[in-house]
Amino acid sequence: MQKVAAQALLHGVYIITARDGERINGMTAAWVSQVSFRPLLVMVSIAPERYTFELIDRSGYFAVNALHVNQIEIARGFGFRSGRKADKFEGVAHQAAPNGSPILSEANAWLECRVVDRHRAGDHTLFIGEVVAGEVLKDKDILPFRWGDYFK
Amino acid sequence: MQKVAAQALLHGVYIITARDGERINGMTAAWVSQVSFRPLLVMVSIAPERYTFELIDRSGYFAVNALHVNQIEIARGFGFRSGRKADKFEGVAHQAAPNGSPILSEANAWLECRVVDRHRAGDHTLFIGEVVAGEVLKDKDILPFRWGDYFK
Repeated sequence: MQKVAAQALLHGVYIITARDGERINGMTAAWVSQVSFRPLLVMVSIAPERYTFELIDRSGYFAVNALHVNQIEIARGFGFRSGRKADKFEGVAHQAAPNGSPILSEANAWLECRVVDRHRAGDHTLFIGEVVAGEVLKDKDILPFRWGDYFK
Repeated sequence: MQKVAAQALLHGVYIITARDGERINGMTAAWVSQVSFRPLLVMVSIAPERYTFELIDRSGYFAVNALHVNQIEIARGFGFRSGRKADKFEGVAHQAAPNGSPILSEANAWLECRVVDRHRAGDHTLFIGEVVAGEVLKDKDILPFRWGDYFK
């Protein structure tokens, strides 16, 4: 049924980032959606074993960096390995959002969110974040997530 | 900031349907995402004043009907008006999923979900549903949601 779900649902490709003190990390994620207009809330679904989960959990903030259609390689670089063992930002230009979350300078757009709620959902946790800052950096289409771009 | 969010997030276009006894309805929605692998969970974010919300609330089931790129008119037909006042299914071929949720025969794919959890998030409510049935009907790309397709 996962294959049916993959063809029935359209997700973008994002690098979810967070900072806790001197530690920063980012991970590739697709399960992201707006969920409310007022306040402006965004949901990201993240597995609890992820290093980025730990940083969001400690800092209470995360950023959603939307990739555009020519950035599959960046998505690969922030997937397939853990930030506990590798510096995923090596060679990737980035700066800090107002509350410290890393922003990829080449992203299509970014949103920084303050965690206002969280809910366990199966093998993931939904972080609900209120958008506190954001910017559109390019004017391109967001990269759609396709399993075949990352897994054979 | 809503405009930034609209350019930073990629959503598909779906008709969310539900049945309560003899009453059926469907509504156009974009805020849908997978949220867990095991169990296979999908989230839909729906405003509590919607008629479809009432039917999901009473039945405990909903279906996600994914539209493909040539179905903007169907999305318009299931938006802009309430099923309390109009039969949105008039002239739209449909059948019943195993637990009764209406399936659009021309949809690209559908998933029927059993509600396992719900969470209030700002002006919407997240229904978390376990996928209990589903089918890919066509082999096309899902219609991406763009505000300009529905609002001037």
